[in-house]
Amino acid sequence: MADACIALLSDFGSQGAYAGVMKGVIAKRAPGTQLIDITHEIPPGDIRQAAFRLWQALPYFPEKTVFLAVVDPGVGTSRKPVAIRGEGFFCVGPDNGIFTYMLEGRGPATAVQIRIDEPGSNTFHGRDVFAPAAALLAAGADVARLGPPVEGLLSLAWPRLSISKRRDAIIGEMMCPDRFGNMVTSIGALTRIGDLLRLQPWTPGCESCEFPASKARVVTGHGQRLPVRQTFADVPVGKALAYIGSDNLLEIGVNQGSVADAFGLIPGAEISLAWG
Amino acid sequence: MADACIALLSDFGSQGAYAGVMKGVIAKRAPGTQLIDITHEIPPGDIRQAAFRLWQALPYFPEKTVFLAVVDPGVGTSRKPVAIRGEGFFCVGPDNGIFTYMLEGRGPATAVQIRIDEPGSNTFHGRDVFAPAAALLAAGADVARLGPPVEGLLSLAWPRLSISKRRDAIIGEMMCPDRFGNMVTSIGALTRIGDLLRLQPWTPGCESCEFPASKARVVTGHGQRLPVRQTFADVPVGKALAYIGSDNLLEIGVNQGSVADAFGLIPGAEISLAWG
Amino acid sequence: MADACIALLSDFGSQGAYAGVMKGVIAKRAPGTQLIDITHEIPPGDIRQAAFRLWQALPYFPEKTVFLAVVDPGVGTSRKPVAIRGEGFFCVGPDNGIFTYMLEGRGPATAVQIRIDEPGSNTFHGRDVFAPAAALLAAGADVARLGPPVEGLLSLAWPRLSISKRRDAIIGEMMCPDRFGNMVTSIGALTRIGDLLRLQPWTPGCESCEFPASKARVVTGHGQRLPVRQTFADVPVGKALAYIGSDNLLEIGVNQGSVADAFGLIPGAEISLAWG
Repeated sequence: MADACIALLSDFGSQGAYAGVMKGVIAKRAPGTQLIDITHEIPPGDIRQAAFRLWQALPYFPEKTVFLAVVDPGVGTSRKPVAIRGEGFFCVGPDNGIFTYMLEGRGPATAVQIRIDEPGSNTFHGRDVFAPAAALLAAGADVARLGPPVEGLLSLAWPRLSISKRRDAIIGEMMCPDRFGNMVTSIGALTRIGDLLRLQPWTPGCESCEFPASKARVVTGHGQRLPVRQTFADVPVGKALAYIGSDNLLEIGVNQGSVADAFGLIPGAEISLAWG
Repeated sequence: MADACIALLSDFGSQGAYAGVMKGVIAKRAPGTQLIDITHEIPPGDIRQAAFRLWQALPYFPEKTVFLAVVDPGVGTSRKPVAIRGEGFFCVGPDNGIFTYMLEGRGPATAVQIRIDEPGSNTFHGRDVFAPAAALLAAGADVARLGPPVEGLLSLAWPRLSISKRRDAIIGEMMCPDRFGNMVTSIGALTRIGDLLRLQPWTPGCESCEFPASKARVVTGHGQRLPVRQTFADVPVGKALAYIGSDNLLEIGVNQGSVADAFGLIPGAEISLAWG
Repeated sequence: MADACIALLSDFGSQGAYAGVMKGVIAKRAPGTQLIDITHEIPPGDIRQAAFRLWQALPYFPEKTVFLAVVDPGVGTSRKPVAIRGEGFFCVGPDNGIFTYMLEGRGPATAVQIRIDEPGSNTFHGRDVFAPAAALLAAGADVARLGPPVEGLLSLAWPRLSISKRRDAIIGEMMCPDRFGNMVTSIGALTRIGDLLRLQPWTPGCESCEFPASKARVVTGHGQRLPVRQTFADVPVGKALAYIGSDNLLEIGVNQGSVADAFGLIPGAEISLAWG
């Protein structure tokens, strides 16, 4: 099918042939499909980071893109292989919660358990089960052809997000680092209660900002305080800041430096946005 | 030519422009060819690992794929640049043994020495010799057009594999690690004597298992013993096992851990599969 | 547009989703465009290395390739987003000097400041500004459609290159390392004064070599002397040499070793080619 697109994500790394072999399988079964790597450098078995990267990527891919995601520490166990039709996109991968974030708030989704006709390996379902299923979807097959319906997909825990008792701070957690030393937090768009907390003010282009931004500050679990600014150049080189990143999430950064080096912050560490 | 596919493998790494430049050369000469990276992270000059990755990848790529493999420590010397037509695939690269494993047992192959018309660099035949040749093949040219026939391709040594004197163990060697900390051994499909040794019993789906699997154990060169199991979940977290990997080779792994960390095993180390 | 090609370069690394998201944006807006990565592993913010890699890659890509280059430490400041039509190619990226080397000596270029219609992020213009612009160019749009003309693009400093007072040596500097431990210098093709200095003799295939190659030697800033040879095999394993690399620049290498390990040479260190 002309213009079909498969977006690939895995924890296979780039040293071996695994990611390339999945692409070979697709090229063989659905010639002409455009193959785009989101990343293959998810830390081994880190389903949560994988779920986050898929959530980040989804809005920017063409209509009908098939997201083939293989972070699969349970391969060879009874965890189900699934294919999902969402509103305008497809997902193929293990039923381990990896699609939780990207499916949230995007309308009804239909999931099937992928039927395994030929016995393949116990350790490489990316090649033997998921890539063939993704190729079928890219070639125009309906998900229903891939297997019987499955109810109750496994759901990943949501990133921590709550409001303080005195209602003067939002408490979240550190998520993923990027290559530049910045780190995304759970505070912002990737939340179910975001709207209630009036987080919209940070949305770029928002015109009715009710949040007292001038009083805002970010406080780490160790008590360090960071100003909330528009962009890196608003603080001197080497100084830390919080800002709204390109995913509409609060991020922590150091102008030409690294948050991990400066604060020892790791994914999961508490962070709060206070305005009291 | 629509649907032509070139699979690339090299030791160029991803920091520089080398791999991208090879693709530019191909896009210029054979527009529309699908370019799929197997990997560019072969350790510099490691022809044997390159040969193994090509062997792993071959069965999963489309008919007529051109495998462009540039691990070429002898570039600039008298080693020959070659193009090979195998049964259903092509190879382009240096004649240094890199295609030995993928050509084994796959029917007759025709090799030519690539004629070098324009003087190029002494150090980057990937760009100046091999990518143009691969582009010609992808565009439908016959290998004979690329240069005169060459006999006696250089052959790589085969991975170690023998049977013990008492005929109660197969002795092999450790091959390549993967990103997850597992390591492939030479015991299994990638052998010329595999059939004789009745290694088929481990082939997934085999029904006539004559091998006494219950008695089987793997013994490292340091004397550690590992059980042979189906998959990781069959041993506790942190425990080692041997299993048949996705290439039908015996692999050594640690459930959510690393073989190299646990046993200090490196490629080339002796490993045996015993059943006495 | 069939056969359109976009070549991507950035400092995004491969751990995150950034490079993949840029490709998603392009696939959405210019379906069927061939996407080729030059590299995404430019050291963060290293505009000069980015400029060098673009210069290396340009000659090998198809006519009309769009070079989308995002090494953009000034994102969110007043630095201009630009699109450039050169002779046979296009550039899209920040106006921070990244295109200096590739534009040099390649005829007139027309630059426009990319008009930003929709407010996007302050931190990811690769996704919100540059990828959409590159997609438009790949789809056949004229650069003039992207925004108003801009004069006086920012220019990067040129690599150091001078002739000694006694006119018996060319003094240059170390540029970028490659994965094999070799390092490119500024002496050779990437210079404005190369012609004057009669550097042509090293050009492979040159027949009228006026340079006394037999007397030539390379001297590091620490006083080490290296012979000038054709290729690695001309010196014993472990020995250093200088040679003309695949970009027609003088390179320093160690046969099966690393220049950085052997001499502690880093980018910017002085190097000279002497013949007196």
